[in-house]
Amino acid sequence: MDIESTAQANKGGFFSQWGNYLKALPSSFKSKVINFTRSIKKIGQDDPRRVIHSLKVAIALTLVSLVYYSRPLYDGFGVAGMWAVLTVVVVFEFSVGATLYKSLNRVCGTLLAGALGVGGQHLATAFGERAEPVVLGILVFILAAGATFFRFFPKIKARYDYGVMIFILTFCLVTVSGYRVEELFELAHQRLSTILIGGAACIVISIFICPVWAGEDLHKLVVSNIEKLANYLQGFEVEYFHCSEDKEKCEKSVLEGYKSVLNSKASEESLANLARWEPGHGRFGLRHPWKQYLKIGALTRECAYKIETLNNYLNPEIQASLEFKCKVQEPCTKMCSESNKALKAISSSIKTMTDPSGAKSHIENSKTAVEDLKVALEMVSLDDTELLAIVPVATVASILEEITKSVEKIYESVSELSELAHFQSVIEPNVSPEKPTLLHRGIIKPVVDIDNTVDHVEITIPEITTDSPEKQNATPKPSEHM
Amino acid sequence: MDIESTAQANKGGFFSQWGNYLKALPSSFKSKVINFTRSIKKIGQDDPRRVIHSLKVAIALTLVSLVYYSRPLYDGFGVAGMWAVLTVVVVFEFSVGATLYKSLNRVCGTLLAGALGVGGQHLATAFGERAEPVVLGILVFILAAGATFFRFFPKIKARYDYGVMIFILTFCLVTVSGYRVEELFELAHQRLSTILIGGAACIVISIFICPVWAGEDLHKLVVSNIEKLANYLQGFEVEYFHCSEDKEKCEKSVLEGYKSVLNSKASEESLANLARWEPGHGRFGLRHPWKQYLKIGALTRECAYKIETLNNYLNPEIQASLEFKCKVQEPCTKMCSESNKALKAISSSIKTMTDPSGAKSHIENSKTAVEDLKVALEMVSLDDTELLAIVPVATVASILEEITKSVEKIYESVSELSELAHFQSVIEPNVSPEKPTLLHRGIIKPVVDIDNTVDHVEITIPEITTDSPEKQNATPKPSEHM
Repeated sequence: MDIESTAQANKGGFFSQWGNYLKALPSSFKSKVINFTRSIKKIGQDDPRRVIHSLKVAIALTLVSLVYYSRPLYDGFGVAGMWAVLTVVVVFEFSVGATLYKSLNRVCGTLLAGALGVGGQHLATAFGERAEPVVLGILVFILAAGATFFRFFPKIKARYDYGVMIFILTFCLVTVSGYRVEELFELAHQRLSTILIGGAACIVISIFICPVWAGEDLHKLVVSNIEKLANYLQGFEVEYFHCSEDKEKCEKSVLEGYKSVLNSKASEESLANLARWEPGHGRFGLRHPWKQYLKIGALTRECAYKIETLNNYLNPEIQASLEFKCKVQEPCTKMCSESNKALKAISSSIKTMTDPSGAKSHIENSKTAVEDLKVALEMVSLDDTELLAIVPVATVASILEEITKSVEKIYESVSELSELAHFQSVIEPNVSPEKPTLLHRGIIKPVVDIDNTVDHVEITIPEITTDSPEKQNATPKPSEHM
Repeated sequence: MDIESTAQANKGGFFSQWGNYLKALPSSFKSKVINFTRSIKKIGQDDPRRVIHSLKVAIALTLVSLVYYSRPLYDGFGVAGMWAVLTVVVVFEFSVGATLYKSLNRVCGTLLAGALGVGGQHLATAFGERAEPVVLGILVFILAAGATFFRFFPKIKARYDYGVMIFILTFCLVTVSGYRVEELFELAHQRLSTILIGGAACIVISIFICPVWAGEDLHKLVVSNIEKLANYLQGFEVEYFHCSEDKEKCEKSVLEGYKSVLNSKASEESLANLARWEPGHGRFGLRHPWKQYLKIGALTRECAYKIETLNNYLNPEIQASLEFKCKVQEPCTKMCSESNKALKAISSSIKTMTDPSGAKSHIENSKTAVEDLKVALEMVSLDDTELLAIVPVATVASILEEITKSVEKIYESVSELSELAHFQSVIEPNVSPEKPTLLHRGIIKPVVDIDNTVDHVEITIPEITTDSPEKQNATPKPSEHM
């Protein structure tokens, strides 16, 4: 009886489990569908250009497919028409630069390999029918091995990798095709023209319908990375030195933002490689100094590494002497805030493509703060405080000092960029340096350094612009520099 | 006369310049050729597997090309034979993982899209001859847009990007081809079998002729990155604390090595993605925990960021108090050397795939050193030394403390790896823990911590193995763990 009841219970359990499972199935399926829909939405919202890109590819493919499907082209080009479809699928990339890189590489690789292939086949036939396959085999072997090895050259890999691959492909196809030379020319003509049709469709659509420029993305990436560092410093100041009321303002996302800067090298390099292929667009000329962006990026990362180390000292477990903190608080918060302001001025100068000299005064201020710190350290009497509790605070101060050095380096390399890319200077139009007398009008305080006149690039810093209200009017709007 | 002579001189100058130019041309050409040869040699020597890979690609291509060239296959497969050549060129990658990723994606993408394409065409014909192109266009548009958007999903992008591309391509080609269904099956059969031939050739050659395993590369990369950090710490100890005679031993390359660790994320991730596709090989099973390597890599980079900050303090311009340095030298050098030894033990444990517990004693020692430092700091009297000169040294000590924390984290995640991947434990075969009496033989000193018995994993550290000569005999040779 006992056994039976257990068996029954088990049976009941089994069935109810199955029932639960069957009930759970639709609900788990439902939750999966919901999750999937959510992730689609998220990916689309993160960068709406992704949706547009998908539509662009679909348009290009539909157009080329239908042209291929309709008989006129089909009869003219034969099966080669499918190369147009193939080209669109393979060549159409997210950014204009990548699309241009791939289509130009494809066309050049095909041309070069086609010519060499015809020559190779001609050479092979000259050796007689028996030796032909041997000669062909040797030719293919040598070229394939050589070209594959060639792909390991860093410069080739970065700029012509796809072209070399297409070169190997076309050379093999042409050499081994076994067609007579006249047929080959016919074939080559067909294939090239279809590749050109496909490539042209991609290029036209990618440039003229909501273009995504790799160069612009690189520009924005560098700007946002510098901004993230600035935001961190602002947050750190509030968080570490407990600037009282502001405390709740500092969100965790601000203090985490810099982490993405640490690993930005790969994306910066690939964007810079693609940007080189792009024609002039918007504010960027054909020979815009993209390489300089990589230098700025490297220095930004260097600063981010220091910030990463600094971030460890926000750990509340590390016991720091409050007394000592108070003694160095003033110069330290000044280093923080001036570096933050300098970084913000720098990023906004890149963003608006104007001269970055507005950041210089902040850098000078941060240097003064470093000197202030030294004075403060010299004055501290240590009889009553323990060294052990001083060390973490001293470390923070020391790393902040290193960060100010990093910020200065970033400023210098942005100044170089400003020269190379001919950034606009932001000197007030009616107060040109040729008329220094105007600087001494009653309202504006005398300016010691000529660079100080461009402080107003950074309009988000009220305490600097307040002393010369007239200057604010001269602040160039971003749209003027577009 | 004056003018004439200048003109003549100019002329002479012009011709001699041209002469120089012509003379310079061959020599500059020569130097270019020499440079080119050198860079070929360098690329080959940096990684000889590159030469082998090029030859492997050439072998596969020559084989497939000649099979395509020979009539039997050509007659059997028609023009579709060229797909075999195309597949080899596109699919054959440097590592086995990448080759498998691409060939499996290609085959699956083709199969799925082929089936869907036939269905799509069938559907379109059902709508009548007039509506057919419209239905086809709509189908291509929807599928192309959907699949292209799908490629933005991070998981899809990492694992199936190529497959989705091939899917779009094949679907368009099949749907739009305009063949009747019977013809289509014939075509699909031809194309699939040629793709299978090409893919199989690539897979067989890449696995059986000098295979390059992405997983093994990842394993080695993680090991060498940890080693680089260890080397830096060793170099830093010598360089910063001037351990006298050893000074000349420390080369610059040792102190620069860690820089490559900073940007290792991208390559680690791509290797881990490819490693998943590889079958079990050598010491790595099919389900080797490659993800754990990424965790270890992230922690290694975290430590490298701290080292990057530490590196700034090697700058001789930073004035540090020598007196204070002497006072904290002992615990600091101990932190350095114990962290270094722990990292070396960890890297060697990964390398030989043995239990990493040999590093534990070093980590304990480094923790003791941190406590020693605290004691030393408490004892320092600061009446006679200036705080300003103390700060840099205190910062170095504080960052070293942070590094010891990082090393412990690395140790923990390697221990996890050791559990997940079932690393061999390195307990002396004849001194098993079940027979503790053996530990008390006269020659071997009593061991307080059981973990100490596995210290001998790291055979490059003589001072640890010298105290128990018998242990050295028990040191497992790496080949035993292969």
